[in-house]
Amino acid sequence: MIGPSQAYSPNLLDGERMRQDFEALARFGATPDGGVSRPTFSDAHLAARKWFLARAEAGGLATHVDTAGNHSAVLRARHSSDARVLLLGSHLDSVPGGGRYDGALGVVAALHVLLACKGAGADLPFTLEAIDFTDEEGTLVGLLGSKALAGTLTPEFLQSPRGGRQALVAGLERAGLREERLFDARRDPGLLAGYLELHIEQGPRLEREAVQIGVVTAIVGSRSFRIVLRGVRGHAGTTPMDARHDAAVAAAKVILGVREIIVRDFPSCVATVGDVRVEPGAFNVVPGVARVALEFRSQDEGELDAIESEVLARIRALAEADGIGVEISPVAHWQPTGLDPMIWGAIERAAADLGLTTKRLPSGAGHDAQALAAVTPSGLIFVPSIGGVSHDPGESTAWGDAVNGANVARR
Amino acid sequence: MIGPSQAYSPNLLDGERMRQDFEALARFGATPDGGVSRPTFSDAHLAARKWFLARAEAGGLATHVDTAGNHSAVLRARHSSDARVLLLGSHLDSVPGGGRYDGALGVVAALHVLLACKGAGADLPFTLEAIDFTDEEGTLVGLLGSKALAGTLTPEFLQSPRGGRQALVAGLERAGLREERLFDARRDPGLLAGYLELHIEQGPRLEREAVQIGVVTAIVGSRSFRIVLRGVRGHAGTTPMDARHDAAVAAAKVILGVREIIVRDFPSCVATVGDVRVEPGAFNVVPGVARVALEFRSQDEGELDAIESEVLARIRALAEADGIGVEISPVAHWQPTGLDPMIWGAIERAAADLGLTTKRLPSGAGHDAQALAAVTPSGLIFVPSIGGVSHDPGESTAWGDAVNGANVARR
Repeated sequence: MIGPSQAYSPNLLDGERMRQDFEALARFGATPDGGVSRPTFSDAHLAARKWFLARAEAGGLATHVDTAGNHSAVLRARHSSDARVLLLGSHLDSVPGGGRYDGALGVVAALHVLLACKGAGADLPFTLEAIDFTDEEGTLVGLLGSKALAGTLTPEFLQSPRGGRQALVAGLERAGLREERLFDARRDPGLLAGYLELHIEQGPRLEREAVQIGVVTAIVGSRSFRIVLRGVRGHAGTTPMDARHDAAVAAAKVILGVREIIVRDFPSCVATVGDVRVEPGAFNVVPGVARVALEFRSQDEGELDAIESEVLARIRALAEADGIGVEISPVAHWQPTGLDPMIWGAIERAAADLGLTTKRLPSGAGHDAQALAAVTPSGLIFVPSIGGVSHDPGESTAWGDAVNGANVARR
Repeated sequence: MIGPSQAYSPNLLDGERMRQDFEALARFGATPDGGVSRPTFSDAHLAARKWFLARAEAGGLATHVDTAGNHSAVLRARHSSDARVLLLGSHLDSVPGGGRYDGALGVVAALHVLLACKGAGADLPFTLEAIDFTDEEGTLVGLLGSKALAGTLTPEFLQSPRGGRQALVAGLERAGLREERLFDARRDPGLLAGYLELHIEQGPRLEREAVQIGVVTAIVGSRSFRIVLRGVRGHAGTTPMDARHDAAVAAAKVILGVREIIVRDFPSCVATVGDVRVEPGAFNVVPGVARVALEFRSQDEGELDAIESEVLARIRALAEADGIGVEISPVAHWQPTGLDPMIWGAIERAAADLGLTTKRLPSGAGHDAQALAAVTPSGLIFVPSIGGVSHDPGESTAWGDAVNGANVARR
């Protein structure tokens, strides 16, 4: 993927050494169930990042930490007059109780692409930089490091971060970072040649179709809403079925109604009711209130509009039919991000050269690539997730698939 | 209701004095929203019971507190050779944040029946006792005083009480009661002439049909179950709709399936899913686990068997179809209690004499009468609840309806 020709190195990278490094990294924040827990700026996270720099230096690479805490290993183009940088990377933070592959695979693969290029002594057309972005998972903010580098982080965005202000302030202090200097991590887009990320799919599509390499065409957008359904609390023994305005029944209809609309009218999208809470929540009281967390995703902004319109209308109609009050509040709104079609093609050619099968697909999860895509041609390569499991200690990818992905990135 | 004839006193009781006493009582544990909060052995509860004894004594009645803490006012039959006691009563404890009528109306009405009989100087065929039973609502145990009096309280039953052992031990100490002496409150059934309770309906049926007096034929039985639905937790963005095993979707199908079965096949019964909790409970995670609280009630044991069989089979089938694991654990099992048909007839005749309309109906809620029915002919009179509201500060009954009920009891 460094270029369409194979001029720089026909050699594949060292899958066994990459595996050793991957396993060394998985010991930071290791959980007894085989996963890792490395929330942003936890001891385990800071230790993993330190290991990454030490490993890069041991391999003869330069290293660098920017004002947003992004950790980089660098292999400079010796003879090229093009001073631009091709970024390769992902993130070393994890969700609490997460898996070993999410993020870490991309960072280790990026490191090994640099090591392989250095080993081959190739004269690179660009400087290569393997980067571990800060807080991709959003313990504090979400895409904090990649947005800072892309220059899309704003002071306003930091005022109501996902993990709360206190956690952000404490976390930055813990990591020795200063809030007002986060913005200095911005790179001039003119100095970037592009961004390429290897990541596990976190879903079952590649495995289902026995495809080796996923070529990500877009990162989906999402919208989320809090829905409060207000019925009438009643005595479970004395309120006849036909006299009830049961908020749990209304919530059940919402859950099934949302699913029906998505499956029938938006088959390439997903919608989730991830939380339901009923009040007062006792065996012998007909619930008076239900609070429902709704989220849906699509790669197309128009489709998000259509889902929002159809789903919210259905919820209002269901509630009205049952004499239930309804309050709907938007929570989050992420626009879909298209990735560069030139890069889809380059990934497909690199995979074909290696005899690997490919499939174009959107990413249902957010990635640092969506921040980078705003300022530089960006690509995202998926390798299959076993059983589609993700954000879970059971998350896994066949090592051969992981190495395939790294080799595609390397080209 | 003391007898079918009107020999003892054709006079109605003093509705206005009864109202003053009812309102005096409602000040104990009064909440700003117009309700009362008098959990068993709270300061407000103990104060209300003390007021009850003082009011009875001021009216020239004897008083008595038994070893289960039941508080009584007594009017002895002066000339009758029948030493048996006709109990009239209910309870002065309330649910936290409850209403003013539940229990208190029955105690005040019982007191005023005694006062009216005393005022009329009637020669009673039995001794009359107005009784305030301990812990009907179950802050500690549920029907504690009435079960102790009926002799159906067992030491085992006190080992895992509804409110926990600690609360029971602390509560008894607070009230100056000793656990091992609770059983001494048992009365010889041969010395009881019967039990009669006036209570608000706590449901909307009488109001809906504009009936003044409800003649309770039975107190329903209930069964409750905890149901755990185990799906597969997944990433809300990357798990396609057709690859999900969503525990919240399964819970929604359970809620609607239970309702459908009851409404279609058991129209005189009720079933409630009063609580649903999903895990992990986030916008962006497909729920892996849902915990559902199920309860259903019927006045017929065979019908409870049929509901249990049909509902649990449906839940298992729904879960299996969606690839969801299911665990079902029984929580509580209360048998239905039939009330004495001789007493239905007596209540109906008394109401007819007063020109009041009646309707036979089962009680969907538990009452002290179900404990007494095990040992003595027992009756339960309902008066309409406005809007069917109960266990809520908004609980209310038109005062005319309350007085009607008391007058029926008085006869």
